[in-house]
Amino acid sequence: MREIFDAELKQIGDDLVEMATMVHTAVTQAGKALLEADLQVAQDVITGDHAIDALHRTLDERCVHILAQQAPVATDLRIVVSALRMSATLERMGDLARHVAEVARGRYPAHAIRATAEPTFAGMATAAAEVAHEVTVLLSTRDVELAGEIEKNDDVLDDLHAQTFATILSPEWDGSTQEAVDITLVGRYFERFGDHATSIARRIVFLVTGDVDDGPPHD
Amino acid sequence: MREIFDAELKQIGDDLVEMATMVHTAVTQAGKALLEADLQVAQDVITGDHAIDALHRTLDERCVHILAQQAPVATDLRIVVSALRMSATLERMGDLARHVAEVARGRYPAHAIRATAEPTFAGMATAAAEVAHEVTVLLSTRDVELAGEIEKNDDVLDDLHAQTFATILSPEWDGSTQEAVDITLVGRYFERFGDHATSIARRIVFLVTGDVDDGPPHD
Repeated sequence: MREIFDAELKQIGDDLVEMATMVHTAVTQAGKALLEADLQVAQDVITGDHAIDALHRTLDERCVHILAQQAPVATDLRIVVSALRMSATLERMGDLARHVAEVARGRYPAHAIRATAEPTFAGMATAAAEVAHEVTVLLSTRDVELAGEIEKNDDVLDDLHAQTFATILSPEWDGSTQEAVDITLVGRYFERFGDHATSIARRIVFLVTGDVDDGPPHD
Repeated sequence: MREIFDAELKQIGDDLVEMATMVHTAVTQAGKALLEADLQVAQDVITGDHAIDALHRTLDERCVHILAQQAPVATDLRIVVSALRMSATLERMGDLARHVAEVARGRYPAHAIRATAEPTFAGMATAAAEVAHEVTVLLSTRDVELAGEIEKNDDVLDDLHAQTFATILSPEWDGSTQEAVDITLVGRYFERFGDHATSIARRIVFLVTGDVDDGPPHD
């Protein structure tokens, strides 16, 4: 019985790593689509989100099945409940990557982000890709040291998010309202992406160390 | 055993109704704070969000406890797992109401929304308050007819959201970039609020009728 249970728990862990890997690819491509105004890549992210959603549903069903069949308690139960939550969070991160790609597609063949704001968004795209990679490794290795790195990259995203507002609200800003809207939304998508990564990091730290999880960061 | 379980399930249901009631109050007040530039009301929403977060944590612990103690299966299990998810969704709806209030507070004593866009946001505030009320009643009565009303109000929110962009991107728009940013963000908050309400409605319909739940609306 325990062997079956362990195999099922391992499968749940593997699914989470696979979802995180897909989210990492999605956000990396979304950043590329945005910064290079690459329609094909944008389209790939948008289409690819269905696969993330499908894995999310599979994983959730697997968690409900394990709850029903194995009636886990204590730490085992927390692992399954956490997996349900992290699956939902990863699904949402996939949505946010898709939203970035949708903005890129919506402005094609123009660039959604004008040259003055490009360095900020290049920084956001890099930090978001890093944070997604770190989440993948954290889920795979449970190396809680990585949680610190994730929080750091989330801080970078928050700082860059503040910078996007500084850019469009400065007296030098002479972009269109459409550009201001796009910067506002894409900045928000990346910032939320970082928040979600942090919430996963805190859940893993809680599972591994038992340190109090304050829940998702207060956004 | 079954009696204890039923009492615990009822408590979970009651907590969800209480959370939804708090969210309804929060979004109603957030709309008022936004449209009337009322600092005190905005502050109430922001402070009050802690109570929603606290109830969210209590409810989650209750769900985990019931999973551990009662090892529910079949429909009972789906009810508890759905409660976990709806609790997270309601917590997020509370955050979104708080974000609207934060924008109102940030612009005080000015109005965040200029007169030309006010009717649109008055409509969004009304639809969001209605949808929150409908969610409260749906959670309390399980009257699935209400799910249709929620979807309708969500459509209203989507239409009004599109209208916010039409306003700020029209040639007649002569507002500041700050105003465009505020409209973009607050419009997004209300629109997401509606999405979350719809996701709760679909979960309840699924629990009551067994009709396939496609998960949260594809945002």
